This record gives sequence, C-alpha cells and structure tokens, in this order.
Amino acid sequence: MIHMDELKEEIIRFQTERGWKKFHTPENLAKSISIEAAELLEHFQWGKDYDIGEVADELADVFNYCILMAIELDLDINEIVLNKIKKNAIKYPVEKSYGVSTKYDSL
Amino acid sequence: MIHMDELKEEIIRFQTERGWKKFHTPENLAKSISIEAAELLEHFQWGKDYDIGEVADELADVFNYCILMAIELDLDINEIVLNKIKKNAIKYPVEKSYGVSTKYDSL
Amino acid sequence: MIHMDELKEEIIRFQTERGWKKFHTPENLAKSISIEAAELLEHFQWGKDYDIGEVADELADVFNYCILMAIELDLDINEIVLNKIKKNAIKYPVEKSYGVSTKYDSL
Amino acid sequence: MIHMDELKEEIIRFQTERGWKKFHTPENLAKSISIEAAELLEHFQWGKDYDIGEVADELADVFNYCILMAIELDLDINEIVLNKIKKNAIKYPVEKSYGVSTKYDSL
Repeated sequence: MIHMDELKEEIIRFQTERGWKKFHTPENLAKSISIEAAELLEHFQWGKDYDIGEVADELADVFNYCILMAIELDLDINEIVLNKIKKNAIKYPVEKSYGVSTKYDSL
Repeated sequence: MIHMDELKEEIIRFQTERGWKKFHTPENLAKSISIEAAELLEHFQWGKDYDIGEVADELADVFNYCILMAIELDLDINEIVLNKIKKNAIKYPVEKSYGVSTKYDSL
Repeated sequence: MIHMDELKEEIIRFQTERGWKKFHTPENLAKSISIEAAELLEHFQWGKDYDIGEVADELADVFNYCILMAIELDLDINEIVLNKIKKNAIKYPVEKSYGVSTKYDSL
Repeated sequence: MIHMDELKEEIIRFQTERGWKKFHTPENLAKSISIEAAELLEHFQWGKDYDIGEVADELADVFNYCILMAIELDLDINEIVLNKIKKNAIKYPVEKSYGVSTKYDSL
C-alpha cells in the first residue's frame, strides 16, 4: 500500500522547516522537474546499465517536485492522473495503437 | 485521500490493453519523463501565466511515466521518496539552508 | 568572426583521441543534449542571478553535443538553421506574432 | 564552410522583425533550449529509427536558441566551446578515459 498523504506531509514538513515555500512557484517547480528528470536520464546516457539505488534516488527527486507542484497548484494527483489516462485512451484507441509506438497524430 | 494503488492498476491496465510493456524499458521511460517534463515546462516558457487545466494534464503525464518506471523497476514509491527526503535533510541542514536556495555543495 | 570549422576539428580530435565515437550514436547524443540543457537550466532554477562563466561553460557543452550530432548525422549546421528559420517565418508571420509570445497553433 | 555570422544576422533579423527581444531573457532562453532539446529527444523516445528531416529541424531549433543565448549574453561561441573542450580534456585524460564512458568523478 502506498501512502501518498504521508509523502505529502513529509514534503511539506521539509519545505516549511527550511522556509523554502517562497522558492516553490509553479514556474520554478516546472524547471526543477525538468532538471531532476535530466539527472535521472543521465543514468541511461551511454547505455542500459544502471545502479538501481542511484536511479531510485533520482526518480524520487522527480516525484518529490511533482508532488510539491500538485500541492502548490492544489491539484488532486489521483484525479489528474486518472483524468489524463481517460484522455490518452481516446487519443490511443486499442485497435489502432496495439503493439505500436506511433504518436496519436500519425495513427 | 490519494489512492496510488488505483493509479498503478489503471496505468498497468492501459499498458496491457495496448501491448506497450515492450516499449517501457527503464531507458525509454527515463527519456519519456524528460520529454513530458519539458512539455510541462513549455507552459512557463515565456512567463508566469498558465492554463491550470493544461498544466494539470502535463503534470499528470510526468506522474504517469514516473509511476510506470517505479512499477517496471519494482520500486516502492513511498519508500524511495521518504528515503530520499532523509538524504536531502542531511545535505540541507535546516540551520544552513533556511530561507536560501544555495546548492548543498556551496552551503 | 566565428570559425565553426575549427570547432568541428577540435570536437572530432577530442572524440578520436578518446575512442568515443562508438558512444556517439544519434540517440545517445539526443539524450546528452537534453542532459546538458538541463545543467544550463539549473543556473536559472531559483531566480535570475547567474555566474556568467558557469553559464558559458554549460552553454558550451550544449553546443558541443549539438555540433557532434550534426557531424554524426552529416548535417550542415548553416543549412539546417537557415532552413528552419524560413519555416519558422511562415509559422510566425510578422503581422500576427509581433510583440506576442503566442504559439503558432493559437495565432 | 560554415558561416556562423550569417546565422547570427538571420537570427537577430527574425527576432527584431517580431519584437521578440523582450522575451529572450537568459532565463527564458535556458528554458527554451531544454524544451527544444526534449523535442529532439522525442524522435528517439521509443527506438533508433528517425526521420532525418525532422531530426534536422529539431536540432536546428536547439542551435537557434543556443546562438540567441550567446548573442544575448555577449558570448563568443568559438571561444566558449574551445575553452570548455580544454577543461574537458583535463577532466577526461586520454589515458584514463580511452574507450570508456565513465564520468570524470569516477575515473
């Protein structure tokens, strides 16, 4: 079982203790997510071998900023992800997209 | 209350229905997270105004691929995020980092 | 005067001396450009202050991989950039886009 | 022969005609480079097949914003790239880095 509410609490505690809320504007968080995503990508820059512990840490950083952005924008993570999956299901109908990686606008 | 297990189920269902598991290698997911993070950033490219619905959709796409990567690597999201917050707390001691955005290696 | 041919020569010399051509596939270079772009972005993560020397170094790394990609794909930098400016000029007609940052598909 | 000065002239002309200089702050250009780098990466998201014309266009967009950033920061592209290659040569000595993709801090 994953306890997202516990994560949110810990993330807010970390932010509050350091007085960092002022830095966490939506724009700065969007930049931060891209920066951490690239640090994750760096583990796959030259090949397929990776250290699972290091990858886990970088993936955690991306999650961290994504959760912070949801908090700052007052978005319900469960709701926005389920909602987007529904939209993606329309963009990628099973019968057209089965087993192919074609982008929706070329399907 | 956020139900991450429901998200994971829906994400796996979406993937399975389309036969897309073969595309979702750790390397391809790392690329995908960077690509979606940049689409989120695009909403803040020229300024601070943004459409909350569009931002929510892009943030959802980043979450989607992050959750998929956790599933594929058999990582517990709750555990890796809490674990990384503990490491970050050591890198950024409250007394040194309060109210400043200085990177840990310059603190 | 900028001497791109001198840059290309130096970049190829650096690559050859280290036996790195085998790593520089188009895919790996595309990842590398994203990774270096994020390192550049990191200097603007929390605000507008930046160290010009550090920014110059990160921008140089992005140029480096872009030039390497052009070499590996046998693309003429002058030609592809001028060609793309022409396409952008059609997507962004002066009379519609003057002074506004609206994306072409909403103009 | 590559004529970077012609590129710079065309890029400035495009910017001036549209009154876009006000948008091209160093921070916005750093975001733009990351965004375009991800659009380039998207062509390699699921595999190694790519359309050379589309890749050329995306690579051109990255070059375009990089050249614009050099112009706005009054940086000499030739100088910063050659300077960075010298630094990289020290970080990656030939005898330690030949044929391996190990990062400098693990060499």
